[in-house]
Amino acid sequence: MKLYTFASAPNPRRVHIFIAEKGLVIPEETVDLMNGGQFTDSFKALNPHCTVPVLVTEDGTCLSQVSAICSYLEEIHPNPPLYGRTAIERARVRDMCHWIYMDGIGAVAEAFRNSTPGFKGRSLPGQVSYDQIPELVERGRKRLPGFWKALDARLEGREFLVDQHFSMADIDAFVTIEFARWIKESVPEECANVHRWFEQVSRRPSIKTD
Amino acid sequence: MKLYTFASAPNPRRVHIFIAEKGLVIPEETVDLMNGGQFTDSFKALNPHCTVPVLVTEDGTCLSQVSAICSYLEEIHPNPPLYGRTAIERARVRDMCHWIYMDGIGAVAEAFRNSTPGFKGRSLPGQVSYDQIPELVERGRKRLPGFWKALDARLEGREFLVDQHFSMADIDAFVTIEFARWIKESVPEECANVHRWFEQVSRRPSIKTD
Repeated sequence: MKLYTFASAPNPRRVHIFIAEKGLVIPEETVDLMNGGQFTDSFKALNPHCTVPVLVTEDGTCLSQVSAICSYLEEIHPNPPLYGRTAIERARVRDMCHWIYMDGIGAVAEAFRNSTPGFKGRSLPGQVSYDQIPELVERGRKRLPGFWKALDARLEGREFLVDQHFSMADIDAFVTIEFARWIKESVPEECANVHRWFEQVSRRPSIKTD
Repeated sequence: MKLYTFASAPNPRRVHIFIAEKGLVIPEETVDLMNGGQFTDSFKALNPHCTVPVLVTEDGTCLSQVSAICSYLEEIHPNPPLYGRTAIERARVRDMCHWIYMDGIGAVAEAFRNSTPGFKGRSLPGQVSYDQIPELVERGRKRLPGFWKALDARLEGREFLVDQHFSMADIDAFVTIEFARWIKESVPEECANVHRWFEQVSRRPSIKTD
């Protein structure tokens, strides 16, 4: 197996924390996103979406979506479980992960990609150029207060997002908060549950890996 | 179990085809999206995201994300498998499903929601109002040719998208094509592999369910 990555970017970061929680060691190659490493012919041949992370499995399959990469690693390395311990718990983790991806990471990403000078002409990942859309910066920022509030409500009286166990949902929410710093957004003071949870999760060794 | 749905909308449609392929019968209640049924207090209490489908499981868990709903049904009703037969096949199905969701369904959705008069002030689902962004109509349409071309390349010499078996990936790609009709977009003639595959999938009894 081999992981193509750029450790500080949010989607790779989700996978790195997941791998560290599992205690796995997977050979890595950094794709230099700062210098167009994702647009070289050799990388395009591997992943035409021109994104990282990519996990190349033992049989040569290239997985380019974090949910697929982590679900696969969960299946071949089940312990500790990070996608739930029972069918219903797994469903709750997946449900929450998809919500966080769309409404948390997705909101930050639309504000970030459409405002950052280095992403001019790249409002979406991939080989086709898409102009930045200033309205998406505003929309992305406007989406966040509702997301933080929902996260806070969810964490009321809970140590973790789903069923008293650290899971992929916690990883995704944590990375959303880190990523939000890139656009200078942060969780409001009044979301005390999120702050308590964030501080606790920050102390996990997996978080400090990179 | 109970499914809250609006059968003709694309995300419910994915679940309905999945359920029909499994041969399951799940009690349903239609949420009248045409008349704001998703914004009633009772439905908001069930799903604050104000979206369908929602699957309420035996223990009262509300699942509101299609990937979680279908993964859960797959787990409790494994046959026929629609998320792959082996760990690597499951990874390939999930990888493709996420790509189709983001680059296929997502592209159509941004063109549709930002152009349709009935979605004025609702460029995103949920309780918060977001103005339509005309640039997203153009961007959504511009994304589709690349998506059809990638789908066509994938289907070269293949009966189904992943590993010779009908899977959730085929369901998601099929629904993308149906959904694209809502914005009068269609697969170009030259994508002969997609047309061949679409015609074959259209004949499945599950497709005719609704």
